[in-house]
Amino acid sequence: MIADKMKPLMGNNSAIRTMFEEGDKMRAEYGPENVYDFSLGNPDAPVPAEVKQSIIDILNEEDPTALHGYMSNAGFEDVREAIAQSLNRRFGTAFDHGNILMTVGAASGLNVALKTILNPGEEVIVFAPYFLEYNWYVNNYDGKVVQAPTDQETFYPDLEAFEKLIGDKTRVVLINTPNNPTGVIYSEETIRQIADILERKQKELGRTIFLISDEPYRELAYGDVEVPYVTKYYDNTIVAYSYSKSLSLPGERIGYLVIPSELEESQLVFDTASNANRIIGCVNAPSLQQKMIARCVDVKVDLDYYDKNRTALYEGLKDCGFDCVKPEGAFYMFLKSPVADENEFCAEAKKHNILMVPGSAFACPGYVRLAYCTSYDTIVNSMDGFRRLADHYGLR
Amino acid sequence: MIADKMKPLMGNNSAIRTMFEEGDKMRAEYGPENVYDFSLGNPDAPVPAEVKQSIIDILNEEDPTALHGYMSNAGFEDVREAIAQSLNRRFGTAFDHGNILMTVGAASGLNVALKTILNPGEEVIVFAPYFLEYNWYVNNYDGKVVQAPTDQETFYPDLEAFEKLIGDKTRVVLINTPNNPTGVIYSEETIRQIADILERKQKELGRTIFLISDEPYRELAYGDVEVPYVTKYYDNTIVAYSYSKSLSLPGERIGYLVIPSELEESQLVFDTASNANRIIGCVNAPSLQQKMIARCVDVKVDLDYYDKNRTALYEGLKDCGFDCVKPEGAFYMFLKSPVADENEFCAEAKKHNILMVPGSAFACPGYVRLAYCTSYDTIVNSMDGFRRLADHYGLR
Repeated sequence: MIADKMKPLMGNNSAIRTMFEEGDKMRAEYGPENVYDFSLGNPDAPVPAEVKQSIIDILNEEDPTALHGYMSNAGFEDVREAIAQSLNRRFGTAFDHGNILMTVGAASGLNVALKTILNPGEEVIVFAPYFLEYNWYVNNYDGKVVQAPTDQETFYPDLEAFEKLIGDKTRVVLINTPNNPTGVIYSEETIRQIADILERKQKELGRTIFLISDEPYRELAYGDVEVPYVTKYYDNTIVAYSYSKSLSLPGERIGYLVIPSELEESQLVFDTASNANRIIGCVNAPSLQQKMIARCVDVKVDLDYYDKNRTALYEGLKDCGFDCVKPEGAFYMFLKSPVADENEFCAEAKKHNILMVPGSAFACPGYVRLAYCTSYDTIVNSMDGFRRLADHYGLR
Repeated sequence: MIADKMKPLMGNNSAIRTMFEEGDKMRAEYGPENVYDFSLGNPDAPVPAEVKQSIIDILNEEDPTALHGYMSNAGFEDVREAIAQSLNRRFGTAFDHGNILMTVGAASGLNVALKTILNPGEEVIVFAPYFLEYNWYVNNYDGKVVQAPTDQETFYPDLEAFEKLIGDKTRVVLINTPNNPTGVIYSEETIRQIADILERKQKELGRTIFLISDEPYRELAYGDVEVPYVTKYYDNTIVAYSYSKSLSLPGERIGYLVIPSELEESQLVFDTASNANRIIGCVNAPSLQQKMIARCVDVKVDLDYYDKNRTALYEGLKDCGFDCVKPEGAFYMFLKSPVADENEFCAEAKKHNILMVPGSAFACPGYVRLAYCTSYDTIVNSMDGFRRLADHYGLR
């Protein structure tokens, strides 16, 4: 009854989804306050008050037929200009509305970008661990995902190995920084090195290689860490952005693509992407949310909310003797499993009502992902369980 | 620079889009009140007041983090249940939330449905004239569109020809009633006949054939005409619905699929469609608009707004001697061109500042489409031009 291409998806029940269902069962059995669910990346920092106020103001001020009506497939021009100017102020770029294409979140943005540029059989290089949903996006256009390794201490790209993987089928390199699942942010030097390799390979192979930067976690960077703006380092970059995390509204599906003027045949790519936005069925990003963004373009959630969690969880796990990279961004921590089979570790943790996602769900067995977009209490109260886990594995 | 599959799209500048740009030029030159633009199907009946009030109430009453947060890929259960119950009250169906899958408008709903069930090389039968965008949706999944003819007087399907086109590659029959571009509504008898043919062919060919009913214009039916609810006549039906026209909010991208329990392996198809909704990049329908729909489930725009236009335009054109089927639904009229080449007719009309879309943009040369979702004044004031056009062609 269903299309052949969908069958593998339906066979593999996602590890995260399975976790979620188990979590529900456990919450019903033990009470929600006694279940420490680190499985889901569902942002829970409060939605900034400006969001609600802006929507109400817009509804009161604007003509409803225009407000809720069709606009260009790329989105409202004033909204796109407001975003471009905000990026320019913050990152020293030189965008205008012609570089910004509003999308139904970053997931849709990635699909629009891939629909625009990827041919069947062409390769998309990703750095493992990575968000496995990318496999499905690439599969939508009959491309092939090629996994490049990262250093297992830092989760930075292994650049030597990466360069060797680039060949005459490579069309896209897809990076995600701040990273899901590791929380790592690539330094300016790393971005520069990736750009250098791509420039060199473009010349050597005589073909265009796009760098797609998936940036739903851009605003979630802690302390003084900077997230380099990738278009400044490599011309053929497309940025996919989402407000899901920066404004805590993942259900609203609002984001954008940046297609810089420096990109080869930029106007053609932009126009094609606008059409792709239409024909994949989105047509345009939701109009009221677009208008809200224009008024909230520099607003973001309270970062301290996640930062407090980050510090508590990292310090707590370190004290227990667990091994992990201190995340600099996003709201994930990627913990080394004390045993080779991280599924065993997850099962053991479940005995203490702690839910984590196995690293194999991110193409990186031997690790687990903890999403710390939870209440602070969840983290504090989970520590007793983690200590007992540490004892079980003789870590302290 | 762009994917091969996108190249034909970028080569063919859409006739409707070309019209739109010409319209802009003409409005600048002659003043907007002197341009009679019947090219765009952009709903302009006022958005019902309940929409604004509901959104404000929801923002004031609901917890923002849950309101704007992730939900199941199929949508909020309470919203889906409200829609199911509304359909049951109005059409005597027996749906519940498990049959309703919220989508980013009907365009996205069609893509979700096709992604779910269509294999490369399989055929989708459509009745010409039809919305050519269907070609792109089918092409997204490497299917093939097969055009079935309609009676050129009534635009009802030529059922004998239709039956002959069904073969062992047929996977989907896609209908659109009320119809874009003709405004025709299929009678209960026609739906029953289509269903009978499909039942017979399913048995004969030993394969499942889906009937997809694209219904963005369902609520726009004038007078006492009923739009039969297709799931009642054929089990393997999927309905794609949109609120774009019924609530005048095409920019918001909110609609749903109905996957009835009677459909073969309904649960599998529903679950696959939910996953398809995620992996094509939509993830879910915009959350605030979903919640609005639950409160506005029985609200619709003032039909008299369009009906008044319909009558004025139809009567006016008839008086001029033009030939067209009186539309019973949607906001389109499909006029027979007085000369074989309707592009010539469109060019002649432009001399009177009248913009219409050639029928070839709907796979039906020799006709033109007029979208009467305009102001009433536009229709009244256009009549002088139409009279002169009629004189030019010796129609009166």
